[in-house]
Amino acid sequence: MSALKQLQQIVGETQVLTGEAMTPYLIDWRGRYRGEALAVVRPGSTEEVAAVVRLCAEHKIPIVPSGGNTGMCGGATPDESGRALVVCLARLNRVREIDTDNDTITVEAGCILQAVQEAARASNRLFPLSLAAEGSCTIGGNLSTNAGGTQVLRYGNTRELALGLEVVTPQGEIWHGLRGLRKDNTGYDLRDLYIGSEGTLGIITAATMKLYPLPVAQRIAMLALNSLEDAIAMLSRARAGFGASLTGFEVMMGPVLKAVVRLYPQQRLPFEGPSADAPWFAILELSDSESAEHAQARFESVLGAAIEDGLVVDAAIAENIAQSKAIWHLRESIPLAEAELGKSIKHDVSIPISLIGQFVKTTNAALQAKFPGIQNIVFGHLGDGNLHYNVARAPNQTEQELLATQYEVYQLVHDSVHAHGGSISAEHGVGQLKRDELTRYKTELELRLMKQIKQALDPHGLMNPGKVLQT
Amino acid sequence: MSALKQLQQIVGETQVLTGEAMTPYLIDWRGRYRGEALAVVRPGSTEEVAAVVRLCAEHKIPIVPSGGNTGMCGGATPDESGRALVVCLARLNRVREIDTDNDTITVEAGCILQAVQEAARASNRLFPLSLAAEGSCTIGGNLSTNAGGTQVLRYGNTRELALGLEVVTPQGEIWHGLRGLRKDNTGYDLRDLYIGSEGTLGIITAATMKLYPLPVAQRIAMLALNSLEDAIAMLSRARAGFGASLTGFEVMMGPVLKAVVRLYPQQRLPFEGPSADAPWFAILELSDSESAEHAQARFESVLGAAIEDGLVVDAAIAENIAQSKAIWHLRESIPLAEAELGKSIKHDVSIPISLIGQFVKTTNAALQAKFPGIQNIVFGHLGDGNLHYNVARAPNQTEQELLATQYEVYQLVHDSVHAHGGSISAEHGVGQLKRDELTRYKTELELRLMKQIKQALDPHGLMNPGKVLQT
Repeated sequence: MSALKQLQQIVGETQVLTGEAMTPYLIDWRGRYRGEALAVVRPGSTEEVAAVVRLCAEHKIPIVPSGGNTGMCGGATPDESGRALVVCLARLNRVREIDTDNDTITVEAGCILQAVQEAARASNRLFPLSLAAEGSCTIGGNLSTNAGGTQVLRYGNTRELALGLEVVTPQGEIWHGLRGLRKDNTGYDLRDLYIGSEGTLGIITAATMKLYPLPVAQRIAMLALNSLEDAIAMLSRARAGFGASLTGFEVMMGPVLKAVVRLYPQQRLPFEGPSADAPWFAILELSDSESAEHAQARFESVLGAAIEDGLVVDAAIAENIAQSKAIWHLRESIPLAEAELGKSIKHDVSIPISLIGQFVKTTNAALQAKFPGIQNIVFGHLGDGNLHYNVARAPNQTEQELLATQYEVYQLVHDSVHAHGGSISAEHGVGQLKRDELTRYKTELELRLMKQIKQALDPHGLMNPGKVLQT
Repeated sequence: MSALKQLQQIVGETQVLTGEAMTPYLIDWRGRYRGEALAVVRPGSTEEVAAVVRLCAEHKIPIVPSGGNTGMCGGATPDESGRALVVCLARLNRVREIDTDNDTITVEAGCILQAVQEAARASNRLFPLSLAAEGSCTIGGNLSTNAGGTQVLRYGNTRELALGLEVVTPQGEIWHGLRGLRKDNTGYDLRDLYIGSEGTLGIITAATMKLYPLPVAQRIAMLALNSLEDAIAMLSRARAGFGASLTGFEVMMGPVLKAVVRLYPQQRLPFEGPSADAPWFAILELSDSESAEHAQARFESVLGAAIEDGLVVDAAIAENIAQSKAIWHLRESIPLAEAELGKSIKHDVSIPISLIGQFVKTTNAALQAKFPGIQNIVFGHLGDGNLHYNVARAPNQTEQELLATQYEVYQLVHDSVHAHGGSISAEHGVGQLKRDELTRYKTELELRLMKQIKQALDPHGLMNPGKVLQT
């Protein structure tokens, strides 16, 4: 019996896609990669995933795990060989358990992130992971890439939110590691090895995640600022003044926000006059566990002092939920606006906060010297030292001309990141996009250690080949 | 030239100990293990550690890394063969860097935990890891066992506090992974693999750790409670009422605290009358980022309601720093009091908080049924679901008789932990003590995955052999 027939027996005929039906699984979200596949299979349970993997192990068929297909680095797109089987986890989408006394939720890998947030909220709890793709990305994808987002400075990356995992190994065995424990020191940390390994060591099929109390009140403001340095100084004050109640601190260049409101006229900057022309903006979010009055008083005290000292040029404090949403919506529209403005060269980098000002200054200058007129599109999660340091074409450049410089730009920016003690992938992972770049910045030893682990757990190299590590 | 001579050339003659001088390194803190060693070597730098390890790799000499020798599971004590070299990290005790803008501190493995706390405080920052042995344990030991302590419910275990590591591999190479980044998704998580691996995969020589703002004010109270269930309900209220300002929630059985004040008459319970006879006590700690007045108001509001509702029998709020210290001192004296009362059988377990009441009730009953009159000594970090569930002799039992039942008691308690979805080592690690117990509760698959990683990174099995995993 052919492997395809056997697959159909495992998951049912309708859940094995071939031909045209595979198309959505063969192209990545940014449209940068297009692969081919033997088939796309959509198992309905962990046991079916395990059976599919055992079949692949037997026939030496490479496997590409797939979730919401919103990854930024082509990690879920198969290569062009057409040999791989895409294993889509979307049907594993049950919330298995919510334990409010233990503050945990156990969800299957195919759960949409927003559905996890909503399930938590329905139990009067917060699941804090939040990012632009939350309406379509899956928690399995978040785990496999260790996704970040806007709440990291308070709650950590996906890694910090995970307590336990269920994983199908490359041999098709099931590791039952769904533990809801804050403390467990019984041997090597397999959980954190699978998290962030982008499906190259096994397939995460379920996870037990931390929940938090819902904030009683939130205050959100957009700040107009004179410089990135002032934003960094403001971050430091917000940390000191709000403590753990500081749940968001985003920055964005003025021209970037202006492009958003130009492209989407239904959105508006909350400033008029000279404040609207500020070179930098920030979004500040306070989540309070006491009361709206307390949140307001605290917010005004820290912000008031910053305005008085000239650190903040102007502040627009959201007066209601609609205004809060409008402010966050401006921020979340940046990637879409970027896309409409044409292709750009994107970098998802992190830098120690103490060096971030210097990094932006020297990198901007080096880029201008080499590519005169090139435009910076800089925004990101300043509270985590994470910038989306993107680059758009110079006015006299075509898109094609810009993209022709792509690898030179990567190298210049990533060299600068590396020189400043930073990371060339802060929250998006490696996938195909940065696999080769990685070899420039990791030592031979670190790459060798990773390969030894890969070899130990997946000796036939069948799990998501060509992602993260060169084969 | 003999290996010993070569060692002397690497670290200097005075830093290679043999004969009597080795004794302190051959016995574990609890006096349960005594081993032998080829020598004890005290390198003075990471490069010297690497050279020592290369020499051992060449001569196939097993290595036992050693820090402050305060471990609870014999993880730093060599076996009886006398073949191993003890590598003591104590001389690697420099604070390499404090970056207050990035809120990080980079320290060498041999730094005493208290010295790290003090260095942070001198820079107006908090390093939150805190545990009873902090005056003598080292940060390297904390990392290798993923130590917990009293502040975990707010700041996490040692793992959550670590951003980057420097590690000497079993081949004597140096992995330079001292990154001060909150976000870094560039490949497999080697950091978390080394953390908690108890020196069996390499030697941690330095780490970059997170710092936090110092709290502006703290409020501490001891609560008298009618039951463990009431303590759990109070924990839930404290979480909701204090949010991230809840930094400590410890519980202890009444008789345990009474033993402390009986043994150490200079210490006193902060209660008189019937409250002093409560079956359970708790310590509640609030760390406020605003003001002493705010802390006080918040503390009183949550506690007042709990007293009014009858959840808390009585509360003794510390009125000054001396009283706060006295309350914490009572808690920290429990292990010493236990030791003075004679040998006990100790369990360091964690249970999902939702099941902790049921766990204690059913385990107590099962123990009494099998070992009538046996006494429970239960205390721990309730906020993390972590109990030190210890057992002392029945009045009609000798110490010898109790210890003769040790493995039966272990099994009964650990079986119950396992049945409640818990962990048999919450914060102390595995070492020698729980290595064989581990094989009862881990699946064959999980043990195999760990062994595959061990084999991949340390193929000759020279790093701390016989710890964590059976050889």
